[in-house]
Amino acid sequence: MSWKAIGVFDSGVGGLTVLKEIVRALPQEDTVYLGDTARVPYGTKSPETVVRYSHQIAEFLVSRDIKLLVVACNTASAVALDSLKESFSIPIVGVIEPGARRAVAVTRSGKVAVIGTEGTVKSSAYTKAIKRLAPEVQVVSRACPLFVPLAEEGWVDNEVARLTARTYLQGLTDEGIDTLVLGCTHYPLLKPVIAEVMGPSVTLVDSAEETARTIAEILSESSLLRPAAEQGNHHYFVTDIPAGFIRVGNRFLGGRLGDVYQVSLDAYHAEKGGAEDGA
Amino acid sequence: MSWKAIGVFDSGVGGLTVLKEIVRALPQEDTVYLGDTARVPYGTKSPETVVRYSHQIAEFLVSRDIKLLVVACNTASAVALDSLKESFSIPIVGVIEPGARRAVAVTRSGKVAVIGTEGTVKSSAYTKAIKRLAPEVQVVSRACPLFVPLAEEGWVDNEVARLTARTYLQGLTDEGIDTLVLGCTHYPLLKPVIAEVMGPSVTLVDSAEETARTIAEILSESSLLRPAAEQGNHHYFVTDIPAGFIRVGNRFLGGRLGDVYQVSLDAYHAEKGGAEDGA
Repeated sequence: MSWKAIGVFDSGVGGLTVLKEIVRALPQEDTVYLGDTARVPYGTKSPETVVRYSHQIAEFLVSRDIKLLVVACNTASAVALDSLKESFSIPIVGVIEPGARRAVAVTRSGKVAVIGTEGTVKSSAYTKAIKRLAPEVQVVSRACPLFVPLAEEGWVDNEVARLTARTYLQGLTDEGIDTLVLGCTHYPLLKPVIAEVMGPSVTLVDSAEETARTIAEILSESSLLRPAAEQGNHHYFVTDIPAGFIRVGNRFLGGRLGDVYQVSLDAYHAEKGGAEDGA
Repeated sequence: MSWKAIGVFDSGVGGLTVLKEIVRALPQEDTVYLGDTARVPYGTKSPETVVRYSHQIAEFLVSRDIKLLVVACNTASAVALDSLKESFSIPIVGVIEPGARRAVAVTRSGKVAVIGTEGTVKSSAYTKAIKRLAPEVQVVSRACPLFVPLAEEGWVDNEVARLTARTYLQGLTDEGIDTLVLGCTHYPLLKPVIAEVMGPSVTLVDSAEETARTIAEILSESSLLRPAAEQGNHHYFVTDIPAGFIRVGNRFLGGRLGDVYQVSLDAYHAEKGGAEDGA
């Protein structure tokens, strides 16, 4: 048994869709969430930059003594997961592997489409993960860069959202796919519009639930779960001022967001650098 | 006369629309441009964060011995210009004041609209600047957060761009405005679509030309211009890897972008911190 918290991070608010499922699956666990709102988005940035940012955040969360780290950002999972696993000794869970597992379980036609940010699609991380599980499954992937700003703007059910979805997704249905992976934690907000464009024969998969299940398994197998009777506490940190995160975050979590604190990762590093010997 | 370069910065590629006009007006001048592509965009971030980033960039450019600094970003001009002027002794030029001057010169109805990022609109910087020049002019302003990602995605002339412009701008024409300030350096890319929605009776104003004219005046009055026969050199720095900047930047500058180098502002600060005594 471990009383330590589960650490979760994302480039911004998107990872809250994953946090929500973790809390639902494991209500007894404490969580610490960090949204890198001062540098959001990650999806349009280079792998090198996303890896650097991910390590800074992981250091911050690990210094708060967590028992497991969740990379609740598809872009960071796609490009930084391996190097994070090399650098830190606690279990680290990304969202790509669970999403891939779910897609393989769901597809009947053996043709799966993955949509995500430019960074995620360029990395081919989903294609590789799906092929590792089921080499015969065909994977088509497509970047949808405007979905993140649409979700952040709250334009998730208007004509612009519908037309954007049609522009990005048209053609995918012709290719015989029956499963669409929402490979970005923002995309579940656009689910109704995406479902409308794809039609009823295509199943939408998001990684959140499957990721929560994976975490529960790992903690259970390592006997790190808190007693089921407990009620977890949830702490939120952001790198920009909290106002925007609170507004959008409450929409994500249905109004149940707790206190949000601003933290400077630069300052944290400077401080840590100075106190290195004493640490 | 001063042989030093003109420093220019923006959150990303948008400021190149300003650089282009500076080079056109003052072809004899060297320029050093910095695009903060690892942390773009600024328009959705808090004033505190944008001020911090702007100071880091100004320090970097000033350390390269520039004679004048251009804040070629509306959001940074709106929230950071005053504090930059307090911290650095060289002349510093933003894009808000020139844009406001131009709008006041152009309007006949005395009703001006300003569109920009959330950060720029919230600051009321354009309204204040216009009212300082002409208190009788009425100003309406509106944030158009999706215009930046649309411009970055290259969706500047399709149905989504048109519908987004209509959604944001509808109603402005009813208010009797005859002048629309494009209060974000990305927006000139969407000029055709915006012009279509606003109709022929509305004049679109962008700050780039007027900003270049202001810079020429300041350098001329302080006798800091290079001889007119010279041909300037242009250096570009970015904080993320250069690939994306080169691609979009060439679209902005019509294929005449030179070499682009990546720089880490963190590393620069760390180094500067360490070598402080010797500097």
